[in-house]
Amino acid sequence: MNYRNFPMVPRVIFGRGSFNQLNDIIAPKRLSINAPFIFLVDDVFKNNTWLSSRIPTSYDDRIIYISANEEPRTSQVDTLVEDIILNTKERPSGIIGIGGGTILDLAKAVSIMITNKGETKDYQGWDLVKNPAIYHVGIPTISGTGAEVSRTTVLTGPERKLGINSDYTPFDQVVLDSELTKDVPTEQWFYTGMDCYIHCIESLTGTYLNAFSQSYGDMALQLCEEIFLTDNLSRVDAQEKLMMASWHGGMSIAYSQVGVAHAMSYGLSYLLGTRHGIGNCIVFDHLEEFYPEGVKVFKAMKKKHNIVLPKGICANLSDREFDIMINISLSLEPLWENALGKNWKKIMTPKKLKELYQKM
Amino acid sequence: MNYRNFPMVPRVIFGRGSFNQLNDIIAPKRLSINAPFIFLVDDVFKNNTWLSSRIPTSYDDRIIYISANEEPRTSQVDTLVEDIILNTKERPSGIIGIGGGTILDLAKAVSIMITNKGETKDYQGWDLVKNPAIYHVGIPTISGTGAEVSRTTVLTGPERKLGINSDYTPFDQVVLDSELTKDVPTEQWFYTGMDCYIHCIESLTGTYLNAFSQSYGDMALQLCEEIFLTDNLSRVDAQEKLMMASWHGGMSIAYSQVGVAHAMSYGLSYLLGTRHGIGNCIVFDHLEEFYPEGVKVFKAMKKKHNIVLPKGICANLSDREFDIMINISLSLEPLWENALGKNWKKIMTPKKLKELYQKM
Repeated sequence: MNYRNFPMVPRVIFGRGSFNQLNDIIAPKRLSINAPFIFLVDDVFKNNTWLSSRIPTSYDDRIIYISANEEPRTSQVDTLVEDIILNTKERPSGIIGIGGGTILDLAKAVSIMITNKGETKDYQGWDLVKNPAIYHVGIPTISGTGAEVSRTTVLTGPERKLGINSDYTPFDQVVLDSELTKDVPTEQWFYTGMDCYIHCIESLTGTYLNAFSQSYGDMALQLCEEIFLTDNLSRVDAQEKLMMASWHGGMSIAYSQVGVAHAMSYGLSYLLGTRHGIGNCIVFDHLEEFYPEGVKVFKAMKKKHNIVLPKGICANLSDREFDIMINISLSLEPLWENALGKNWKKIMTPKKLKELYQKM
Repeated sequence: MNYRNFPMVPRVIFGRGSFNQLNDIIAPKRLSINAPFIFLVDDVFKNNTWLSSRIPTSYDDRIIYISANEEPRTSQVDTLVEDIILNTKERPSGIIGIGGGTILDLAKAVSIMITNKGETKDYQGWDLVKNPAIYHVGIPTISGTGAEVSRTTVLTGPERKLGINSDYTPFDQVVLDSELTKDVPTEQWFYTGMDCYIHCIESLTGTYLNAFSQSYGDMALQLCEEIFLTDNLSRVDAQEKLMMASWHGGMSIAYSQVGVAHAMSYGLSYLLGTRHGIGNCIVFDHLEEFYPEGVKVFKAMKKKHNIVLPKGICANLSDREFDIMINISLSLEPLWENALGKNWKKIMTPKKLKELYQKM
């Protein structure tokens, strides 16, 4: 038996308004006046001076606004890295991601690709990164993905949707300021929150589970149930607790894995560009067979918040398109093994998977 | 408002038997063949080849066995550091603590004092350490103190019992192998486990609490209740879960503090040398007034495990001795403020504190 020596985020600041301390945090990490900080920021904040005026830029620091309307791509990382290298006098002092899972994953990937040769797609997989990333900071503005704490950055490449899983992926610093999540639209809040909920169900029912991951998963799950099923919490408390649920949900994956919903939702994203949060929800809604209790509670949450999921998104797909989704999904072997055990291939055949997709 | 940028242990390995991976973990951290690793090991393992034969020594590495029968002292750290510096050719590659809270706190303090001038007592307090510690690894062999994850190392000095609280205190690496706790005697298991339980009650009922600390405290508390109040768990599961409870209980203090029981128990330790775990229990047993629900559950746990606490330990103390305890205890201002609020001095007068001690 060989256990993973798990990397944790070495510095975290938690608190309403803690974003105001960003300058104090990053200033000591500046390597020189020619080595800028690059801020990758969700473009929903482009004209939002409440946030943008507090981004502490100096010298040659740059803010790059990025749309999170599409899932992050390996080619997008390559372009960003090229742009950054061509337009800075020295290697940057750090990359600071301010946004949701898409922006955080881009920040992680860019910080890796600045110090590692070749193309981003070559690093999709497990433990392929050779050199430490440059200093990188994650500042979530929406809660649920766990991207702020995980050792992966999930990217769509030319051949697959798969993470760069490595010890160099986690952020060096995370700022958890729940005030940054105050204007998230309800549907996005729900879909992203459900990413955390679904993580927990997949981790807690998986075959990889141990006491470490279970304790984090239990905690995140309880927080999700409190947030999405009760009316006990103030707005601020709910925002703070969802931020912690996301954090613990991400930690729960440390010695575990996600499962059926994530494996199938990656197929949808790859083929149809379905966003991760809503994709997970569309899939999970049809997984009673695998997660009976989890799906029951999910449906109750959906009802309580009047969420109506799209239907028939696979209705007009060709056999070839189904095959593409099925291949992407079945290639995620650790996810299936965690969900269904070592003999998962006997349970989840291509035919069975197609039948599931056809319901969606 | 200014929030603490909290340092987390950057590497953790969890798993039954993970101690066997220690060589793989530390070997890349060796600075040279003349820069040894120093293993500080609880002397209960001195003739225990099951453990000692697996300590991976090479070159000039040393094992120093240390009794944990007494609380760790600042003078003990000074002596250890002097011994290590005099007897190594180069600054050590790292300090590896293998034991309970006493040994882990000594390992943290020694790793700090190798790079910081003067005497250990000068660093008791908050944020007084100037230079980063050398690489240090914590390997708990008993669960509950949270020393493996906290940013303090609690030491008895000539003038006070107080921690070295600093960003350089936390371990660089922790190994969580619950198998190492398999032979802990029942009473010690209970007292040290209760250190975690009491942490949680003090943190969760304290005025400093926020959503970050609450989520960790809630989780640790639930684990403690499962372990100490139910018969649901196998021996191995109970050992693994108590290890996680200790970890999360320690994290719960991040943005919080301990409270009345710890403040009073430090007084007992300073004057009478009472060990920390049992001292907490002796005190907590009499704190219904401050923690009514917590003390009720504590008494149920005590009963279930047939624990009989010493009585009358303060019966024959002189007024001068009471004053010493009271001064030590009341000097721990953050603990009292967390427990009783900003006006704590009006509630916890020296007279009131003496009456409480007199019950014990």
